[in-house]
Amino acid sequence: MTKGFINYRKILIVGLGMIGGSYAEKLSALGFEVGALVRRQETLDYALAHGLIAHGQTEVTREYVSQFDLVVSALYPKAFVEWVRKYQEFLKPGAVITDVTGVKRSVVPAVQEILRADVEFVPAHPMAGRERSGVEFADSKVFAGANFIITPTERNTPEGIELVRTLGCILGFRHIAVLTPEAHDEMIGFLSQLTHCIAVALMDCKDSEHLVEYTGDSFRDLTRIARINENMWTELFLENRDELLSQMDLFLEKFTQLRDALDRGDEDTMKEMMRLSSYRRSFFDKK
Amino acid sequence: MTKGFINYRKILIVGLGMIGGSYAEKLSALGFEVGALVRRQETLDYALAHGLIAHGQTEVTREYVSQFDLVVSALYPKAFVEWVRKYQEFLKPGAVITDVTGVKRSVVPAVQEILRADVEFVPAHPMAGRERSGVEFADSKVFAGANFIITPTERNTPEGIELVRTLGCILGFRHIAVLTPEAHDEMIGFLSQLTHCIAVALMDCKDSEHLVEYTGDSFRDLTRIARINENMWTELFLENRDELLSQMDLFLEKFTQLRDALDRGDEDTMKEMMRLSSYRRSFFDKK
Repeated sequence: MTKGFINYRKILIVGLGMIGGSYAEKLSALGFEVGALVRRQETLDYALAHGLIAHGQTEVTREYVSQFDLVVSALYPKAFVEWVRKYQEFLKPGAVITDVTGVKRSVVPAVQEILRADVEFVPAHPMAGRERSGVEFADSKVFAGANFIITPTERNTPEGIELVRTLGCILGFRHIAVLTPEAHDEMIGFLSQLTHCIAVALMDCKDSEHLVEYTGDSFRDLTRIARINENMWTELFLENRDELLSQMDLFLEKFTQLRDALDRGDEDTMKEMMRLSSYRRSFFDKK
Repeated sequence: MTKGFINYRKILIVGLGMIGGSYAEKLSALGFEVGALVRRQETLDYALAHGLIAHGQTEVTREYVSQFDLVVSALYPKAFVEWVRKYQEFLKPGAVITDVTGVKRSVVPAVQEILRADVEFVPAHPMAGRERSGVEFADSKVFAGANFIITPTERNTPEGIELVRTLGCILGFRHIAVLTPEAHDEMIGFLSQLTHCIAVALMDCKDSEHLVEYTGDSFRDLTRIARINENMWTELFLENRDELLSQMDLFLEKFTQLRDALDRGDEDTMKEMMRLSSYRRSFFDKK
């Protein structure tokens, strides 16, 4: 059903936030004809003025949508499922849809179950971003060195997966992996969502104005991601609630173990926990 | 009692680890005559071969110690108090001692109470370091942009404090502050010790080998300091136990608040916590 990547000359980006805008920027620079569907006219004006897209609309019409071979949804998870429900009838037969959402179990089956049989949805998660949101922060340089994860199901074809793998590749991602939606959500719950929860909780502990002048690198590093888009992350957390709760509880268990060892002056346990963390962290330096 | 800094030509560093070695490197480069007392002959050989010091000994003798006007202890907290108890009789009359220990309430009164009346101890904490320990990681570039905190008491003289302020200044620290030992330990308990506890607990949650390839910047940033010198940090944590426990409990409270909001699907609380963390983190960007 799918063709070689070079035949997907016209690519539609739905939603031009930081990530959608970065996809558009890179794909336009590579010579693709990039169109966009956005909510606000100002977003369209900005994207056109900065050469991120060739054309775009604020209105979703059959005439516009049906010209694209490849559609990238850069919407939030629930908005994406809703978009497919409302507008899939406009899609060109044989089109491929992919996405950028950071949770997969709640999105992938929901979309694949309602989708027309002549259109394929290949889910993907570009693990890149910035602390700021909006098309004006679009910058495809954030993809360099980052991970791109494809989370297909048995409904996907090898050709569809290969197409999206090529997309991740030309966008500039360093490492492209394939995981099940379940493995993805567990991994992302730990590596990304839990770390954001820690940063938010730590930053919420104290008024920061008088602390700034004493703050060293470690506190700065731990709280960088405490500057957070509350609408997007609240939705991502809730869409991955069970998995994130279990990762948070695992962290609480380890943190409390260290706290209690300190409380009872148990040097051996403290040192053992530090030796383990040092050993495990050492793997990160070898790359 | 104290003289102008330029008259402190001979400086003794007691203990050449990463920090002591970095002091030695910088002070030698500035033209001071830097001596050292170390435990192991290999440390002495390395420091001499790399020009970090002019001379040094593994044995603590009256003849050697009594020639120095300024003594910098770069020992761990308890070893420092013990050193003063054993060897203070060797110190030159009028000498000034300073230190580098990361906890102050347990060190400052202990040393000042036993110290001879003709010697002044001016406590300081250079807030800089690396994830590695040992003289071979000495590198005074870590001081650039870092904070240097002096924690004097009523036993200190304005001249002694000024001398150590000048020391911090010529070592290259960006910001030199004066705090009470109590305020220092509270601040360091939160900004430095708590962040290390979080990093250790997070890194201890899971086997890391298979996670490395998916790990993004946020997890890397949060766990950088999980590679930790377990002997030094265990001692620092235990010497600041009450304060660190209360900072850990504050963090546990905020983290659990976010966890419970997620558990009951309370979007408002989650977003409010994220808005607060974003607001507070924004102060860090203005510098």
